Amino acid sequence: MAPLPRATSATERSSTARRRIQEYQVTERLIVIGGDAAGMSAASQARRLKGPDELEILAFERGRFTSYAACGIPYWIGGLIGERDELVARAPEVFREKQSIDVRTGHEVVGIDTGARTVTVRDLAAGEEAEHAYDQLLVATGATPLRPPVPGIDADGVFGVQTLEHGQKVLDALADRDPQRAVVIGAGYIGIEMAEAMLLRGLEVHVVEMADQPMSTLDPEMGDLVADAMRRMGMHLHLGVAVEGIATGEDEWIRGVVTADGTLEADIAVLGTGTRPFSDLAADAEIPIGPSRGIVTDRRQRTPVDGGWAAGDCAETFHRVSRSPVSIALGTIANKQGRIAGLNLGGSYSAFPGVLGTAVTKVCEMEIARTGLGETAAQAAGFEVVAETIKGTTRAHYYPDATPITIKTVAERGTGRLLGAQIVGREGAAKRIDVFATALWNEMTVDDLLNVDLSYAPPFSPVWDPILIAARKVDGAVRAAGL
Amino acid sequence: MAPLPRATSATERSSTARRRIQEYQVTERLIVIGGDAAGMSAASQARRLKGPDELEILAFERGRFTSYAACGIPYWIGGLIGERDELVARAPEVFREKQSIDVRTGHEVVGIDTGARTVTVRDLAAGEEAEHAYDQLLVATGATPLRPPVPGIDADGVFGVQTLEHGQKVLDALADRDPQRAVVIGAGYIGIEMAEAMLLRGLEVHVVEMADQPMSTLDPEMGDLVADAMRRMGMHLHLGVAVEGIATGEDEWIRGVVTADGTLEADIAVLGTGTRPFSDLAADAEIPIGPSRGIVTDRRQRTPVDGGWAAGDCAETFHRVSRSPVSIALGTIANKQGRIAGLNLGGSYSAFPGVLGTAVTKVCEMEIARTGLGETAAQAAGFEVVAETIKGTTRAHYYPDATPITIKTVAERGTGRLLGAQIVGREGAAKRIDVFATALWNEMTVDDLLNVDLSYAPPFSPVWDPILIAARKVDGAVRAAGL
Repeated sequence: MAPLPRATSATERSSTARRRIQEYQVTERLIVIGGDAAGMSAASQARRLKGPDELEILAFERGRFTSYAACGIPYWIGGLIGERDELVARAPEVFREKQSIDVRTGHEVVGIDTGARTVTVRDLAAGEEAEHAYDQLLVATGATPLRPPVPGIDADGVFGVQTLEHGQKVLDALADRDPQRAVVIGAGYIGIEMAEAMLLRGLEVHVVEMADQPMSTLDPEMGDLVADAMRRMGMHLHLGVAVEGIATGEDEWIRGVVTADGTLEADIAVLGTGTRPFSDLAADAEIPIGPSRGIVTDRRQRTPVDGGWAAGDCAETFHRVSRSPVSIALGTIANKQGRIAGLNLGGSYSAFPGVLGTAVTKVCEMEIARTGLGETAAQAAGFEVVAETIKGTTRAHYYPDATPITIKTVAERGTGRLLGAQIVGREGAAKRIDVFATALWNEMTVDDLLNVDLSYAPPFSPVWDPILIAARKVDGAVRAAGL
Repeated sequence: MAPLPRATSATERSSTARRRIQEYQVTERLIVIGGDAAGMSAASQARRLKGPDELEILAFERGRFTSYAACGIPYWIGGLIGERDELVARAPEVFREKQSIDVRTGHEVVGIDTGARTVTVRDLAAGEEAEHAYDQLLVATGATPLRPPVPGIDADGVFGVQTLEHGQKVLDALADRDPQRAVVIGAGYIGIEMAEAMLLRGLEVHVVEMADQPMSTLDPEMGDLVADAMRRMGMHLHLGVAVEGIATGEDEWIRGVVTADGTLEADIAVLGTGTRPFSDLAADAEIPIGPSRGIVTDRRQRTPVDGGWAAGDCAETFHRVSRSPVSIALGTIANKQGRIAGLNLGGSYSAFPGVLGTAVTKVCEMEIARTGLGETAAQAAGFEVVAETIKGTTRAHYYPDATPITIKTVAERGTGRLLGAQIVGREGAAKRIDVFATALWNEMTVDDLLNVDLSYAPPFSPVWDPILIAARKVDGAVRAAGL
């Protein structure tokens, strides 16, 4: 605000003061905790709807970066992406200069007082703490890697890969120590992506997974296809094996991963055990946490606490098929929820419609995707199911580079409602999951899906796209199963 | 039928004869005209439901081949597919031996008498005609290339590419005459695919198109992207140019394509001017023909004439967005309709739910796809529309080989209902059209589409898939346009 002008009369002074008070009262302050996808999407969206005179936006990020693509970290480590900054969508100074969003990196929010509507913020460089008042608070603190609670898990050389700082540490370790053997602990998305990265870096790769299959979000027979492919790529899989500890040398750097089956030598280890919502700060402030450990939100991304909002990996949302509360750590969901929180914070109305658990990844040339519920998950959600698996090709069988694709489709018995699909294949296979996702979104039956007018030309699909073949097969099984 | 056994008594003889009469009466005869996708899908499907004792199936095909992939012909001519027989899904003898379907190739049906329920069939080799009675008749006569009605269009060296015989003739011409310049007449799907084939064969390629753009099923600005790409590939485009005739040499082989702008030298010409339903035979028999020139069918693929059915390129169907009767020559639709006709002919109930006009093709590295209605077509169908175009990338921008993708999306003003989408891009772009097709199938609004839980990982899409960006942009325009 400009300094008060020299007033020429008491009336003018009084009028100016009243205007100021009014301005002051209508300027709200939004504080955002977390400067990545959800937080900064929300801040940007809110700013588009409300200018700085109406809404002051202050964002605290404990790291050095804002709006970065955490999902790109394995590819950066694997050497497919040259520069770290390519992963940064928008730097803090851009938010400040272009959008009047006051982003403070290196600032960690250490406490929330929802009654007083204040947050306590530590300046990590200066080591000082300060309180900041808010009118609206968006918690976008993301996810934190699940670390198996075993001795030595915090040893040097054991890395999570959730932030750019983590990624840089792995790259530094690769450069400084020239490790020969990597052990990846956990074979979920991040685990298999990191296994690929380590393989691309020329390391011998071992993957330890407690379950009997990699990708436990797939049904077992689909997970087996992934395991076979990983082995053919030269990775060593240790399935059904629990990690019991980390062995270190005198320098406290990792030397091995201790399992029930013995110790796997390791010059470096990466945690691919998944994440959990990093909702601790909200929990400490008694903002309600749901069964998935995410912060409870309504469809507008509001928490049950007045003035409190949450979005992204730290927030709980709604699964459209299982109807259960779920937390899913995925950039695309974080961006969508952030946008919706921002629209609402900006005075508009927007509702997040929930998720399907759609996910895609690859390990070298093998593509993997899923959406909705697998057979086991659907049964757990109370559905009686019919499931079928088909093998097809991504292109007409006679066209060059037609590659195999396997699709498992799950439908509800009786109604034939599509409940989920899983795809394992090669180039051109996985993105087909989006058709299943769109079908699930609309609660289609497999009977309706099998006639959808999907595109066809020999370089793109067989005359019956594998999706339609999958729908046809499970439709037949639904009919055979009867009511 | 086995010969009558030697009877031991008059009673036994009488009983056997009665059983025979009964069998005879319940054995129906299905005649199928046309041995390609629709006809043979129907025959196979009907056979699965009814054995030879219940249903006799007789299929007449005037060509030499059955169930072949006509859509693969340009790639075979282009040299991407080695052997013609790779395009044949199932040979006549397989139908005869495995399915007891009596397929007669080289037999042309030259007349239908729907009152007497007979067809007149000419054995092309023997030059003889015979009548065959039917109980049910499926007309699956396909499409025929549109030939511009200009002098010389039937000259030697001017080829359609609808059948394997056509394709063989083009390959023979390439081998025997070593042509240097090809003129493709028409720049629809077949035209641009044949332009690619000729380019791959090392010919100088000229494409003459009456419209001001290639791919007139795209809106003009999307067609321009295709034109630019074709020119960059070294093709010579002559747009807005009508063909007025074919110039020939003394040997009656083509020498040039005469246009209003002069004569284009040509050693070979290919018709890419599209097709029309080949419904002439049905029309002659007074089976009703619709405004699209296809045979009128109901949802079960029945014609209005008792015992008459039609499926595939020769049949008229229903466009789910425009609500208009349309005929679309496409293998995937022919297969679906054939299957449905076969289910009904086999005594089951199945309805064809209509089409969206989804199509995909490529010209060298450029991929092109469409579904639903373009801006112009939507207006013609009576919609008030809002349309937006976005440019994005097929993968995360920082991931290797992220390629550009342009999407034009058309929505209904007021309701925001999705009406259509068009995609032009490179690898990984075009098959995304299937998500729009599935959304259209479900009459989704762009507001609903923009939050669908599509898959995301950097090798597969940006964090906001271009589909979602397209939906968001047109949703904004719908809101701005108001009611």
